[in-house]
Amino acid sequence: MNNKITMTLNVDNLILMALQEDISSEDVTTNAVMPTEQNGQAQLICKQDGVLAGLYVFQRVFELLDQRMQVEFHFKDGEQVKKGDLIGTLTGDIRAILSGERTALNYLQRMSGIATYTNSIAALLEGSKVKLLDTRKTTPNNRIFEKYAVKTGGGFNHRYNLSDGVLLKDNHIGAAGGVKEAVQMAKDYAPFVRKIEVECETLEMVQEAVEAGADIIMLDNMNVEEMKQAISFIDKRAEIEISGNVTKENIKHYISLGVDYISSGALTHSAPIMDISLKNLHAI
Amino acid sequence: MNNKITMTLNVDNLILMALQEDISSEDVTTNAVMPTEQNGQAQLICKQDGVLAGLYVFQRVFELLDQRMQVEFHFKDGEQVKKGDLIGTLTGDIRAILSGERTALNYLQRMSGIATYTNSIAALLEGSKVKLLDTRKTTPNNRIFEKYAVKTGGGFNHRYNLSDGVLLKDNHIGAAGGVKEAVQMAKDYAPFVRKIEVECETLEMVQEAVEAGADIIMLDNMNVEEMKQAISFIDKRAEIEISGNVTKENIKHYISLGVDYISSGALTHSAPIMDISLKNLHAI
Amino acid sequence: MNNKITMTLNVDNLILMALQEDISSEDVTTNAVMPTEQNGQAQLICKQDGVLAGLYVFQRVFELLDQRMQVEFHFKDGEQVKKGDLIGTLTGDIRAILSGERTALNYLQRMSGIATYTNSIAALLEGSKVKLLDTRKTTPNNRIFEKYAVKTGGGFNHRYNLSDGVLLKDNHIGAAGGVKEAVQMAKDYAPFVRKIEVECETLEMVQEAVEAGADIIMLDNMNVEEMKQAISFIDKRAEIEISGNVTKENIKHYISLGVDYISSGALTHSAPIMDISLKNLHAI
Amino acid sequence: MNNKITMTLNVDNLILMALQEDISSEDVTTNAVMPTEQNGQAQLICKQDGVLAGLYVFQRVFELLDQRMQVEFHFKDGEQVKKGDLIGTLTGDIRAILSGERTALNYLQRMSGIATYTNSIAALLEGSKVKLLDTRKTTPNNRIFEKYAVKTGGGFNHRYNLSDGVLLKDNHIGAAGGVKEAVQMAKDYAPFVRKIEVECETLEMVQEAVEAGADIIMLDNMNVEEMKQAISFIDKRAEIEISGNVTKENIKHYISLGVDYISSGALTHSAPIMDISLKNLHAI
Amino acid sequence: MNNKITMTLNVDNLILMALQEDISSEDVTTNAVMPTEQNGQAQLICKQDGVLAGLYVFQRVFELLDQRMQVEFHFKDGEQVKKGDLIGTLTGDIRAILSGERTALNYLQRMSGIATYTNSIAALLEGSKVKLLDTRKTTPNNRIFEKYAVKTGGGFNHRYNLSDGVLLKDNHIGAAGGVKEAVQMAKDYAPFVRKIEVECETLEMVQEAVEAGADIIMLDNMNVEEMKQAISFIDKRAEIEISGNVTKENIKHYISLGVDYISSGALTHSAPIMDISLKNLHAI
Amino acid sequence: MNNKITMTLNVDNLILMALQEDISSEDVTTNAVMPTEQNGQAQLICKQDGVLAGLYVFQRVFELLDQRMQVEFHFKDGEQVKKGDLIGTLTGDIRAILSGERTALNYLQRMSGIATYTNSIAALLEGSKVKLLDTRKTTPNNRIFEKYAVKTGGGFNHRYNLSDGVLLKDNHIGAAGGVKEAVQMAKDYAPFVRKIEVECETLEMVQEAVEAGADIIMLDNMNVEEMKQAISFIDKRAEIEISGNVTKENIKHYISLGVDYISSGALTHSAPIMDISLKNLHAI
Repeated sequence: MNNKITMTLNVDNLILMALQEDISSEDVTTNAVMPTEQNGQAQLICKQDGVLAGLYVFQRVFELLDQRMQVEFHFKDGEQVKKGDLIGTLTGDIRAILSGERTALNYLQRMSGIATYTNSIAALLEGSKVKLLDTRKTTPNNRIFEKYAVKTGGGFNHRYNLSDGVLLKDNHIGAAGGVKEAVQMAKDYAPFVRKIEVECETLEMVQEAVEAGADIIMLDNMNVEEMKQAISFIDKRAEIEISGNVTKENIKHYISLGVDYISSGALTHSAPIMDISLKNLHAI
Repeated sequence: MNNKITMTLNVDNLILMALQEDISSEDVTTNAVMPTEQNGQAQLICKQDGVLAGLYVFQRVFELLDQRMQVEFHFKDGEQVKKGDLIGTLTGDIRAILSGERTALNYLQRMSGIATYTNSIAALLEGSKVKLLDTRKTTPNNRIFEKYAVKTGGGFNHRYNLSDGVLLKDNHIGAAGGVKEAVQMAKDYAPFVRKIEVECETLEMVQEAVEAGADIIMLDNMNVEEMKQAISFIDKRAEIEISGNVTKENIKHYISLGVDYISSGALTHSAPIMDISLKNLHAI
Repeated sequence: MNNKITMTLNVDNLILMALQEDISSEDVTTNAVMPTEQNGQAQLICKQDGVLAGLYVFQRVFELLDQRMQVEFHFKDGEQVKKGDLIGTLTGDIRAILSGERTALNYLQRMSGIATYTNSIAALLEGSKVKLLDTRKTTPNNRIFEKYAVKTGGGFNHRYNLSDGVLLKDNHIGAAGGVKEAVQMAKDYAPFVRKIEVECETLEMVQEAVEAGADIIMLDNMNVEEMKQAISFIDKRAEIEISGNVTKENIKHYISLGVDYISSGALTHSAPIMDISLKNLHAI
Repeated sequence: MNNKITMTLNVDNLILMALQEDISSEDVTTNAVMPTEQNGQAQLICKQDGVLAGLYVFQRVFELLDQRMQVEFHFKDGEQVKKGDLIGTLTGDIRAILSGERTALNYLQRMSGIATYTNSIAALLEGSKVKLLDTRKTTPNNRIFEKYAVKTGGGFNHRYNLSDGVLLKDNHIGAAGGVKEAVQMAKDYAPFVRKIEVECETLEMVQEAVEAGADIIMLDNMNVEEMKQAISFIDKRAEIEISGNVTKENIKHYISLGVDYISSGALTHSAPIMDISLKNLHAI
Repeated sequence: MNNKITMTLNVDNLILMALQEDISSEDVTTNAVMPTEQNGQAQLICKQDGVLAGLYVFQRVFELLDQRMQVEFHFKDGEQVKKGDLIGTLTGDIRAILSGERTALNYLQRMSGIATYTNSIAALLEGSKVKLLDTRKTTPNNRIFEKYAVKTGGGFNHRYNLSDGVLLKDNHIGAAGGVKEAVQMAKDYAPFVRKIEVECETLEMVQEAVEAGADIIMLDNMNVEEMKQAISFIDKRAEIEISGNVTKENIKHYISLGVDYISSGALTHSAPIMDISLKNLHAI
Repeated sequence: MNNKITMTLNVDNLILMALQEDISSEDVTTNAVMPTEQNGQAQLICKQDGVLAGLYVFQRVFELLDQRMQVEFHFKDGEQVKKGDLIGTLTGDIRAILSGERTALNYLQRMSGIATYTNSIAALLEGSKVKLLDTRKTTPNNRIFEKYAVKTGGGFNHRYNLSDGVLLKDNHIGAAGGVKEAVQMAKDYAPFVRKIEVECETLEMVQEAVEAGADIIMLDNMNVEEMKQAISFIDKRAEIEISGNVTKENIKHYISLGVDYISSGALTHSAPIMDISLKNLHAI
């Protein structure tokens, strides 16, 4: 996200599709009143405190519409901004500014919203060794943006998708005939650079998984007492993730347990947007 | 969204891309432990009260993975469900259920979240003639899903994109040389089936716009007194839309003013997801 | 069509496909005899009187093949040219000129043919308030070019496609249960910026449509007497379109009736091409 | 065009794009009034005498929208039809019929128009051994349909595109350093299954080309006397094509000369459409 | 590869592109002589001993051309076949068999070639715990087929691509400022399910890497003595991979050293094809 | 392959897909340790004697990742290189060099391998008039690269695909009802610039094919005596191709027979790669 290569290979195509979603034949209003190019300038203003994420995506939207568009930022992704801050200035063909504004802001507001929310949760883990993880509960066709926003906000990424991580659940284990069998089948089948994670609901499963050589144990639906026993049993032979129903209220309890990771779907599926707007567009 | 034609032409491609985002080479875990097809069944359970939207999208995710997948629903889009309700049952290859689960839920939860939130705002307008409109503040590459969800929840759709509606803003008017000129240029340029909407910040602009033959007047940044004057001046010669900063608290004030439409970006950019999950997957 | 944004988002892809249609592996002849780049120049010559449309598309074909291609035009889209006129000059890699020539001319000739024919019909309406409209009878995957050519020739655009305009026909009305019901369903369903048009075959339908609030009435298969009655009944409460079988001979009759629009499929489906050719290619 | 394989690999994609051009988000009118499937039937009626081409394309448009669509034809591609003839019957979801009608007819009318026009020219060559050829002057992104229509109407296809045929023109010959050199370079470079064609403007060029082993000689801009000399010189050592400015009036003259092929761009760029329409749509 | 889901999402598109590469407009020969469908049958015969891989890809090529194609196999992927064995029988439209034959065999022969060659190398490791790995030295746009073939032949997969595995090389370490820093940066940046691998050229690097918590150590360009020291130092704290210049001759030496993995680019870049052909095509 | 036009229209897309195959979300390792651009340089070194092919493809991979990448070559496609030769130097963003290295080499090594192998076979034909041909036994989605490599190595190209050449085999002839009928049907159906080739297994077929006007006769499965009779019968009335099972050992025998072409699938399906590597990458 922060370099030209990722943009070219994995992002530009999505941005172009988003622009085409918003301009399926042409921007009728702009084309009606502005038959020729006209240079203009606009300011990107923060209307709410938060953590920025997606500035390069914002910029890229306009570059794809007008190669000569100049974007100057006064902040970087990951930085805190306050209501009223001037985030940056956009200089180029006014038609491109008008046609790209909505798509660019739709990306920037959502990404900054996720970064801001993630940052607020990650702050609760400060001082501990516990890391905050995202999940695959992202908006369809927006994962690359949302996972980046989580990282920008101070979180860490769980697996990117079903192809690059192994997570054995209930049904996988049932199909394999047991935890041990499932772990072995996964090790034989998956690329050898994959860590094997097992979702465990009971202490027994935890034991089997650790002994089968699982790299990560996810404790699922356990009460605190069971978790303690599980963690004690695991004894650093595997990394430990807690998932599900983590809230700002209860997250503190998990820190002291000594788990390595806490994952939260809310980072990507419930973060409100951060209000940012383009102002003072004028011809120059 | 509710028929095969829209799906085939405008939706399937997006769903396939979302599945490929989640499965870039293969579902390693599932393929490791389930080398052959196995029939199974799972239940779609509501974990929170709300209004459903996206059931056919949910179904389509699985059909694209396994043509023989059977999905039986006990509710329809737009219906209210309560926590604990059995929304439907899925029957087919367990591998397809496991591989498609996350993508299908990512769509259904977001769409139902928007429908639920829209419904709660639309309820405040009941009894009046004011209609609730969405905006273009949708998630990139998800507009078709989110606009449908708004409608399912009781809202109405504003223009779909920059190609199918004319909305003359500040900068367009400046470029054209005035409201009158802008409206005329739009009428000459745009397909004649477009209504012409003008965003007005002053009473003067409202007058010019109405006299130039604008079909819709958007009152922007006016206080209640100015709005009243504007509405009185317009006198049903154009439809009237109020946009921006509409909240559950202040929306009641606008009803009595006699406007036709209130639009709200929050319907699509701030609706929290609705919690729905797939449970009890088992072989049959 | 006349700006970089429309080109990038909605046209470049079609031009590239057209070039790939003509060069599926490589331009064998050119590559056989010209292994290296060689600068050359060619002239775009008009071989028939007419109205130009598509100069920027012509230029874009070559730019996509050779970024350094220079195209200088002595005319603009919409201008009249005469047989023998030098329309412009092309300077760049001869290989790009040879490889792109056919595709560039295929676009320019067709678009100019449509503009020229449209212009000849629009001339018949001069002095009246009646506007000439195109239809959806365009060549598949060429609508954006053909609709632009109609506008360039002095016509106006009807709806762009089935998504951005509402036109209730016989079968829609039958399915809805009546004109009134159909108009109401369309108003409730379609984005609110859509005008609602109804195709009417009888005076009764006209009455129902106007009373239901239709924005546009299309008079279909009526004789002149019926039209007069319909127009008198409508009395400016809706815009009026006449469609079908309009010819150079009978079009005059419709002007005096006081309709607003006359639409003609022939503008796009029957316009002969305008003969334009690339001449005097030589190395420089 | 007449089989499933060509359709799947080379045509379906174009038809889908054409449908998406006409339905960029959804068919608003149809979806507004027909929320559910309803079986219906319509008749395909010929409104003008001519030769049919594109029946399977017509059918395929509907099949892509509704797999259960039944299409029964009473004629085959290449057959003559008369005004009023019932070409076929369409049975399936009325919504698919309404949504696909325009695109299906846009293809069928154009293709039949080309077949009809080609047929009228080919008729003039009957009794002779001269074959009528098309050119690359086709509508962008419609070549596969238009070349097929020419063949259906009784013409023959010249090369499909720049990749599958070698045609050495003026500038190629100049770049190579002479006719002999150009032919040799083409033979060395091009796949060996290509025939080598040379465009000749003088008798000298004809001599050089024949002696260099050209397979086909195109006589360009020669008067009848020069043609006779050229043909006599060639003496069946190469096939002979005449191109350019062939009209219904002058074509007879060329037959007696003893050329093998006459090519005409007008077959694809100037054929008027054939009027065909879908009628009597009704629910069943 | 062995299930419908992987095919649909990650393979069908590549097969279709391969078919379009071979049939850019239509299969001219087949269409010339076979205007209508005709059922036929052909046999897939092994012309050389080896291990089969890609039977489902072979089948899929034909299914994409003719949904009714029946393919019956007498062997499964991974099984040994001998020259002369009847691998399977194909029944369906002869035109689809003729049009798809080359593409289907191009896949099957290459994949079986890789499986056969991999199998011959893996056999040398039998009895040891050492696993044979592939690399990213695959044919562009064929990785999913080739990685599958390696696994089918008895090898194991290294990372799939640059996105799903971390391998710190010389330049990465230099940019990070040292092995320790590089490992830490990778752990902070990469999804936490990634194992971290470090390519080490000296014993010092091995020590640093192990102490920094690398999961896998690749021994690069070391002589046997250095390897022994490295392996002894690592002492099972990380997995060990040997890469580069492994031959049938020297591979035995590495087994006794106690490494975990040996990777070989030759599995995918140097495996000769396995000769398989389609015979006895006849109408039925 | 050797010019910008072919690259833009027919190659860039394949290279981008190959890069996306290798970088499905981002290059995790590089992005982890190199957050910003850094200029660097690397050398392309030959590790084995051979003939180069694909230098421009190699270069293009990097240009697509970093427009400012500078590539300087000391050799050209088709030239012989020796182990240790410095082929060229690469200067640009180190991140682009690291991310593109594998894909660029995968292309260059394969293409040079084919050129080298082709060159070794073509050498055996030196002094004769016999030309060495490739086949359609290429790697799926790599034909354009492999056919170019054959030509670069001194071979010639057979037809590119099923659309641009006619080759009548056994089953085609059977379907047509005989050799004569098949040739006639092909001549009537195929674009007239196609040469017609017939695969003949008996002397009788050869006679029929020649008399029907076939342009090329492929002698299939004949022994040397039969070939001699066939060649004598053909007597230069058609070109002659021998196909199948041509080896370095037996190829000499065919030269003296007087055939025109010998085709060999091994050129593309069995050529081992040529070892080339990128070395000495360092910051500058």
